[in-house]
Amino acid sequence: MSSPETLTLASVQEAHKLIKPFIHQTPVLTSTYINTLASTPQTPESLSNTEWSGQTPSNPILRIHFKCENFQRIGAFKARGAFHAIERLKQSPDFDPSRGVVTHSSGNHAQALSLAAKTSSIPAYIIMPTISTPSKIAATLSYSAQITFSGPTAPEREAAAQKIISSTGAALIPPYDHPHIIAGQGTAALELLSQVPTPLNAIITPCGGGGLLSGTALACSESKTKVFGAEPSFEGADDGKRGYYSGKRVEAVKSLTIGDGLRTPVGKIPWSIIYERRLVDGMYSVTEDQIRAAMRLVYERLKVVVEPSAVVGLAVALYNEDFRKMVEQEGGEEGWDLGVVFSGGNVSLAALGELFKDQ
Amino acid sequence: MSSPETLTLASVQEAHKLIKPFIHQTPVLTSTYINTLASTPQTPESLSNTEWSGQTPSNPILRIHFKCENFQRIGAFKARGAFHAIERLKQSPDFDPSRGVVTHSSGNHAQALSLAAKTSSIPAYIIMPTISTPSKIAATLSYSAQITFSGPTAPEREAAAQKIISSTGAALIPPYDHPHIIAGQGTAALELLSQVPTPLNAIITPCGGGGLLSGTALACSESKTKVFGAEPSFEGADDGKRGYYSGKRVEAVKSLTIGDGLRTPVGKIPWSIIYERRLVDGMYSVTEDQIRAAMRLVYERLKVVVEPSAVVGLAVALYNEDFRKMVEQEGGEEGWDLGVVFSGGNVSLAALGELFKDQ
Repeated sequence: MSSPETLTLASVQEAHKLIKPFIHQTPVLTSTYINTLASTPQTPESLSNTEWSGQTPSNPILRIHFKCENFQRIGAFKARGAFHAIERLKQSPDFDPSRGVVTHSSGNHAQALSLAAKTSSIPAYIIMPTISTPSKIAATLSYSAQITFSGPTAPEREAAAQKIISSTGAALIPPYDHPHIIAGQGTAALELLSQVPTPLNAIITPCGGGGLLSGTALACSESKTKVFGAEPSFEGADDGKRGYYSGKRVEAVKSLTIGDGLRTPVGKIPWSIIYERRLVDGMYSVTEDQIRAAMRLVYERLKVVVEPSAVVGLAVALYNEDFRKMVEQEGGEEGWDLGVVFSGGNVSLAALGELFKDQ
Repeated sequence: MSSPETLTLASVQEAHKLIKPFIHQTPVLTSTYINTLASTPQTPESLSNTEWSGQTPSNPILRIHFKCENFQRIGAFKARGAFHAIERLKQSPDFDPSRGVVTHSSGNHAQALSLAAKTSSIPAYIIMPTISTPSKIAATLSYSAQITFSGPTAPEREAAAQKIISSTGAALIPPYDHPHIIAGQGTAALELLSQVPTPLNAIITPCGGGGLLSGTALACSESKTKVFGAEPSFEGADDGKRGYYSGKRVEAVKSLTIGDGLRTPVGKIPWSIIYERRLVDGMYSVTEDQIRAAMRLVYERLKVVVEPSAVVGLAVALYNEDFRKMVEQEGGEEGWDLGVVFSGGNVSLAALGELFKDQ
């Protein structure tokens, strides 16, 4: 395993070469309507009851380029990191494919690792909490993974993983705190930069464990493109932001935000890239209502299916006055070309119904 | 106005030239998962309680190419016909743009005509039933149209339209029973044929008033590509199918199918193309549950937002044994490349929530 210090733009470029045969180059979409909305000041009323109450609404100019990882294999960017981790394992003389790989995840990483392992005929062992939804279990099983159920806490999951490693010799592939995963996730931004004809002023991505955000930061580390992270503020899910501005990584999060992919704290290796190496330029958060409003826009205007976690970057661009003031100031009359990564589209239809039932 | 008899492939080609600057060439999507599902026999159990109960499930091979008119301007193919009608009106020496255009519609055609008229600075008068949903009224208003409310019956709407014509001299642009509308709608199929590298064995489209289906039939009339229509069977919304196989156009429909764009009877001019000129090769219908199941697949697998009316063609390909047996017989071991037109993506989020709340 390469050490975190060695991660650079080149790591992401090499990852891209390795995984290209296995992933989709996902499309980049734009919407005139959303650009107009993003480039229109919010109403003073909409700022009441927020920290910007009474302030003059900012007036940034934004042209947004949506990188649609909801169209990625297994419906999320996680396929990138998983295929990269598997390809790198296969290159290692110490790796015995018959022993397999193991991870603990109930979400997109479980499906991604299962698919990547299956593609190379490597057994995949997935630790899932017993409370996982039947649809997620079914999706993981459909990639021929072997599921082991555990209790919901981190120690319980880790114990279950250790047990499997002891009995099978499987290699652990964690969902984000791993250099190969991070380099793989960064390939989405690499593509985005090459797909948009004009240079991007910035890219904003969701931040859960920080794999996507730190990988994006590496991808942009030798360009003028700034990188920002977006999080839900609900019940402290903005751990990345709080850590970033206090200088100390927040190690535990317990939030039931609708952005269910963003309920985890930022991992150690992502943190070293995001904060210690200063490769991320700022962190912003949004409310549950703002996530819902952004979801609504994406469904109504872009006509694509996204999960709530996927739209936090768009919600920041539309509703976070700190972010918007910064764009107004730095972008001026020319404005900014902003890349927004839609991280995934795996929302259960029941959850979708619940989310929109009163709208 | 050209007479219906003159409508040919050339009419559609000319329409395409006229409207190209105003419309999107929408993408064509495919899904390995959906192809596998479509090429797998249904279970005998799933056929119980259907007209095919007890029969051996068919085993067709299908490669489906989805023409995504949900990504079209105003979110539906209707933009094509409306822009074409406006462009042709502008060419007519008798047309006085200041007098405007009028139609009676509560749905996609109202928005399409409003947008097309606004683009040429022509006033648009829209007759909508008083019971229209606020979201549809708002969408139509956003294109600067002038709305007149009427009672919900056809005579009430026609009286309201006549009143506007008398007072303004506006030109009536009906939603489907008009040669320029039909030629415009046919341009979606024209694009689809050119976007898929292999020749299509067939195209299937939804059939409400028949504008899209008859336009598609014209687009394919000089090629080997067969054309089929798809309808909901609920409460007699399969009027096109019943008319087609009885030889007599059904003139009235009263159905509350979830495919709300398909509640109208086939118009006279579409009928002349579909049935009298024999340019459509067959009509098929599906149940409300089959429409829901197809919607679910599209949301989960293609990750695109479609309205219920849009997926009836896919539902036929997946669940209608008459259609599937025909494909098995005619396509044999090579199978068929089938174009499926997704007609639109304008579903209210409340309706979406209702549709998926128990899934």
